[in-house]
Amino acid sequence: MSKGTVVLAYSGGLDTSCILVWLKEQGYDVIAYLANIGQDEDFEAARKKAESLGAKKIFIEDLRKEFVEDFIWPSVQANAVYEDRYLMGTAIARPCIARRQVEIARKEGAQFVSHGATGKGNDQIRFELTCYALYPEVKVSLFHYCFFFFPQSQAPPDLYLMTKNPADSPNEPDVLEMEFRNGVPIKVTNETNGISKNAPLEIFSYLNEIGGKHGVGRIDIVENRFIGMKSRGIYETPGGTILLKAHLDIETFTMDKEVRRIKQGLGIKFSELVYNGFWYSPECDFVRHCIAKSQENVEGKVQLSVFKGQVYILGRESPKSLYNEELVSMDVQGDYDPCDASGFIRINAVRLREHHRLQGFSGKKQ
Amino acid sequence: MSKGTVVLAYSGGLDTSCILVWLKEQGYDVIAYLANIGQDEDFEAARKKAESLGAKKIFIEDLRKEFVEDFIWPSVQANAVYEDRYLMGTAIARPCIARRQVEIARKEGAQFVSHGATGKGNDQIRFELTCYALYPEVKVSLFHYCFFFFPQSQAPPDLYLMTKNPADSPNEPDVLEMEFRNGVPIKVTNETNGISKNAPLEIFSYLNEIGGKHGVGRIDIVENRFIGMKSRGIYETPGGTILLKAHLDIETFTMDKEVRRIKQGLGIKFSELVYNGFWYSPECDFVRHCIAKSQENVEGKVQLSVFKGQVYILGRESPKSLYNEELVSMDVQGDYDPCDASGFIRINAVRLREHHRLQGFSGKKQ
Amino acid sequence: MSKGTVVLAYSGGLDTSCILVWLKEQGYDVIAYLANIGQDEDFEAARKKAESLGAKKIFIEDLRKEFVEDFIWPSVQANAVYEDRYLMGTAIARPCIARRQVEIARKEGAQFVSHGATGKGNDQIRFELTCYALYPEVKVSLFHYCFFFFPQSQAPPDLYLMTKNPADSPNEPDVLEMEFRNGVPIKVTNETNGISKNAPLEIFSYLNEIGGKHGVGRIDIVENRFIGMKSRGIYETPGGTILLKAHLDIETFTMDKEVRRIKQGLGIKFSELVYNGFWYSPECDFVRHCIAKSQENVEGKVQLSVFKGQVYILGRESPKSLYNEELVSMDVQGDYDPCDASGFIRINAVRLREHHRLQGFSGKKQ
Amino acid sequence: MSKGTVVLAYSGGLDTSCILVWLKEQGYDVIAYLANIGQDEDFEAARKKAESLGAKKIFIEDLRKEFVEDFIWPSVQANAVYEDRYLMGTAIARPCIARRQVEIARKEGAQFVSHGATGKGNDQIRFELTCYALYPEVKVSLFHYCFFFFPQSQAPPDLYLMTKNPADSPNEPDVLEMEFRNGVPIKVTNETNGISKNAPLEIFSYLNEIGGKHGVGRIDIVENRFIGMKSRGIYETPGGTILLKAHLDIETFTMDKEVRRIKQGLGIKFSELVYNGFWYSPECDFVRHCIAKSQENVEGKVQLSVFKGQVYILGRESPKSLYNEELVSMDVQGDYDPCDASGFIRINAVRLREHHRLQGFSGKKQ
Repeated sequence: MSKGTVVLAYSGGLDTSCILVWLKEQGYDVIAYLANIGQDEDFEAARKKAESLGAKKIFIEDLRKEFVEDFIWPSVQANAVYEDRYLMGTAIARPCIARRQVEIARKEGAQFVSHGATGKGNDQIRFELTCYALYPEVKVSLFHYCFFFFPQSQAPPDLYLMTKNPADSPNEPDVLEMEFRNGVPIKVTNETNGISKNAPLEIFSYLNEIGGKHGVGRIDIVENRFIGMKSRGIYETPGGTILLKAHLDIETFTMDKEVRRIKQGLGIKFSELVYNGFWYSPECDFVRHCIAKSQENVEGKVQLSVFKGQVYILGRESPKSLYNEELVSMDVQGDYDPCDASGFIRINAVRLREHHRLQGFSGKKQ
Repeated sequence: MSKGTVVLAYSGGLDTSCILVWLKEQGYDVIAYLANIGQDEDFEAARKKAESLGAKKIFIEDLRKEFVEDFIWPSVQANAVYEDRYLMGTAIARPCIARRQVEIARKEGAQFVSHGATGKGNDQIRFELTCYALYPEVKVSLFHYCFFFFPQSQAPPDLYLMTKNPADSPNEPDVLEMEFRNGVPIKVTNETNGISKNAPLEIFSYLNEIGGKHGVGRIDIVENRFIGMKSRGIYETPGGTILLKAHLDIETFTMDKEVRRIKQGLGIKFSELVYNGFWYSPECDFVRHCIAKSQENVEGKVQLSVFKGQVYILGRESPKSLYNEELVSMDVQGDYDPCDASGFIRINAVRLREHHRLQGFSGKKQ
Repeated sequence: MSKGTVVLAYSGGLDTSCILVWLKEQGYDVIAYLANIGQDEDFEAARKKAESLGAKKIFIEDLRKEFVEDFIWPSVQANAVYEDRYLMGTAIARPCIARRQVEIARKEGAQFVSHGATGKGNDQIRFELTCYALYPEVKVSLFHYCFFFFPQSQAPPDLYLMTKNPADSPNEPDVLEMEFRNGVPIKVTNETNGISKNAPLEIFSYLNEIGGKHGVGRIDIVENRFIGMKSRGIYETPGGTILLKAHLDIETFTMDKEVRRIKQGLGIKFSELVYNGFWYSPECDFVRHCIAKSQENVEGKVQLSVFKGQVYILGRESPKSLYNEELVSMDVQGDYDPCDASGFIRINAVRLREHHRLQGFSGKKQ
Repeated sequence: MSKGTVVLAYSGGLDTSCILVWLKEQGYDVIAYLANIGQDEDFEAARKKAESLGAKKIFIEDLRKEFVEDFIWPSVQANAVYEDRYLMGTAIARPCIARRQVEIARKEGAQFVSHGATGKGNDQIRFELTCYALYPEVKVSLFHYCFFFFPQSQAPPDLYLMTKNPADSPNEPDVLEMEFRNGVPIKVTNETNGISKNAPLEIFSYLNEIGGKHGVGRIDIVENRFIGMKSRGIYETPGGTILLKAHLDIETFTMDKEVRRIKQGLGIKFSELVYNGFWYSPECDFVRHCIAKSQENVEGKVQLSVFKGQVYILGRESPKSLYNEELVSMDVQGDYDPCDASGFIRINAVRLREHHRLQGFSGKKQ
């Protein structure tokens, strides 16, 4: 008699195959679940493999559209970067994958979920926190022993799959115009050849393609995992890097500076939450809501060039810009009175002068 | 009879020459002060011009060493970047220049200082706040009318003075090794040709040279000025960009992650203070002290390559690293118990599950 | 011929009467505007005085309801306290008063507004920033000379108008039950005598009455003004103090702890903005929106006793509580596994142990 | 043969006695350790009980002085309050107790430590994190089963041990003068009777006595535990409450306002770290260092009265005050120019007016 049904996040690889077999041996019925979030994979081969290993049912789910719209777009709005450098592709994918897994588990009446993410990585945490958050009664079936089958850590011959080496990338840039509304891209046009995309998934895929072609978004970093270890990560995020640069630019152009300061802090918080696996948490809901609110006026167009691993902003325009050309120009005075600036400075200096005076009384030296 | 003595920050250009003449006409004695912080300028020609315009005394001060050691190094420690992008060369130079100007004013018994920074720029604020902070009784002599002589805003034929166009930059990278102690570079070695520098000013100049050669550090941004306007800025910071990337890397490698989070917030604060002209303020003193404290273990070597406008981190090593290779590896278990991770996750999920349960009671949908 | 029309915030006192006369002498038509925000004042006497001094029109506006609903309630949601102590009655009243003044100015076609707040106080800033924000073309008519007529600063015989000395307050407490929804009170019931209030203005007035009777909310502080000076303030906020304590309690009871941390930071920001006069600013709009969002589940009842200057929380209940009595009890285990706590702790200690180990290698002592 | 030696934090109560016996039965040698941090306890009776139960050695350690100087004083400097209300007596005591326990374990060559704090409380975490941080190789010996012996949760007849009911407290206040240096009290004088204390432990004990006599510092709160549950806590912190109020006052009086803002954020962080058990962590070390730095000028005298559960600040004085009576007074103008304030305000309004103008263009309503 079956001990129950497990929905296993299955990749077709050695480790999750090993888990599938082990779960069956333990007496569970296993539903294999494959999520397509845009990775390069032979899903049909994986389906056959799962069948041959005894999976009771197999779900292959195309999550690409919802991954872009529900997970990547909010991250773009947040300028989400973990520890100043990591754009968090994997961290953002995990809750997307686990959300569907939980939906399948509920629909199929499965009380268990399982996965192949190991104990020391962040992905285990991201996966399991999402499951517990969305399906509190779920049980996570662990299979820790399996990871002893892992190969020696060894850098593959070419580590980077999506990006060209900048040294080998084209000698001519691609020049793009990206249009934003509510802080997310609604259109990208390649000014070099007129190609244009306006659906979220198409925009994102195209940016990955262009970024990849020019070697954009490769990083080699040491990062701090949630569980307190440091680990080295080598990542490539071509489309994400272009999006970050373009969004930062249109945001600064259209957002009030003090709103921006507060939103910057919320963006850092958002990045930590997502990195640590708390996409589905009350605080991440709250932060996402606040960030989305801040994006209401973030609209306009950014021109940029992609070349040899770099993204160069060339210009920007917006109907919502707070940039007042007349006010800012040096040679037109408008209704700006230079005398005001002197008063502004002297008032700001009141405190500094008192401080200096006090230090003098105390016999301290500057 | 003289109305008093003014120390004028003099550049040799049209605007400050105009101020010099006007001040004399108003009945002041004028001391011309030229600060060398590494800009490309003919100081002797400027001296002659100041003499011919009637300056009573002329000071040409070489501040390059103290600019690097007292102002740039603390900014490197802070990872100082204003609004996520601007590395603030000018903002950092202002307090350095004004500090010496105030020293001269005190020494020469001058009650006035003057400068050519106009009313709408940030530089007026940075200059004057420093003067008031370090010499509270000083009077700032203003000359607002002069700026009507300004030329029309017009981009010069080649806007960038220090950096090559990445399209024209070498097809071979320079590979550098930078050694840090206390969060500042103490040595840079070019692994391509063996050139090595270890004095602060030499290190910084060399990084400017290498960065400039490869077109590193050009940006075109819109920024928020202190006084509340947005303005467009086009900047090049070749050496600063290399330093930022290298410092970020060695810092993340050697600093505890929670210290890093707190320090990240202090670095953002530091950047705002410096941008707004508050280098000499109690809060900036305090923040600088705290940041310097955080750097005590930031030491080690970073290998990086500079190529086509980009800086690529290749690796890092440190005697103070918190990176424990054995602990982090996937296939060696060490004294890390996978069961602990499950407990860790379940405890983190307690709150998330309660939240979900409550939402269920309230009839809300996820 | 008139130079234009000024709307003057008029109090009936010596200083604003002096301004009224001076403005007329300068050739302006003056509209006198009296705002009733609940202060104890003879509005009819003030009207007659304004008429006799030559005001062209007089507006006496009852703003009490909108003051409570639009200004005090959002401050309660924020737990607004400036510098950990000041509950900011005056700071909150200013934008309320200036908002109506600007409405009158627009309706009456007046291009000028004026007020009696002096140059060194915060109130001038709060008043004028609101006017500029809501009526950018307005001109603020200043009358700085007037303040030389001011009496010597002298503490009135009894400084406190609303609160009894706790030493003389009743020897029996009042016990209240306050009901909240969306983080604002919707009902207060005095359990001692059954009196109950449920309209915002009535609730607030009643809390002022009860707090005043028991001497609640007196403080003597030194505060930091926006312009950089410290000043001493002696305040009484009886109703506000009860509201703060009750709201804090129901909020902590019903809000997720991590949402609370983020919201706490936003509340501090809100307090600074309001204190400094930025109620009407993009950032304060944004912060208010985020705080209001955080209050969606802040509902329930708080029992408290008011006695001898103190507010004691006695208990609380809520349909939205995240407090799970079963989960929290020491002697019922539920589905909480003590083993998880050990794992949780050991994972949290990974980083601390590495840190200690590293310090050992470096020869440092704890 | 012994399995090894355990140092057990022993209280003399039922639960730790139970653990002692169980540990012996499991084959361990047990060292009983009793920490005196000022609680009311019969240490000799506990010693005899431990002996009779078979403890191999017994340590009774008087930690009162180091508890005040090393743990309470830094918390006073931080204005440490968890979630706006809880003064954290217990949270601060834990690392003090565990630190000595680890010292004993090292000295006695014990590889194990044990304690009676249960799995759901914060105290287990605080205890164990300290042990792991200071003695990374230590093993924590758990005894989870024991807690089933616990009595039903039941409020004791009089919950409060240190504080009188304010209703029964004296009808005359005590008036104290507290003198601070570096942000910690160095002397307290009772102006009512001339009693004076100047050693840290004496000062703290005396403030507990006076606060207790007047019923100061009772709270009934719901708090968020580290592990994500909410729990109700009823606390009394008489001395701590007086210290908090007095320190807040002298700090605001002597500290620059912008330093204060940064320090306020660090104080909140410190409180969370201490509450969660991270006293001994790199980030808490860092924060403590920064906070201590901020206290260098926090010196002077505060007069206050303690009465019926309340602490009223009456006045303050300091040689380091940034309060400039002349500058702040309304009727003396000094070198403060009212015109500067107008300029200051207009510059601050530049952004607000632009925002309003933009909203007009967009057809939005205020």
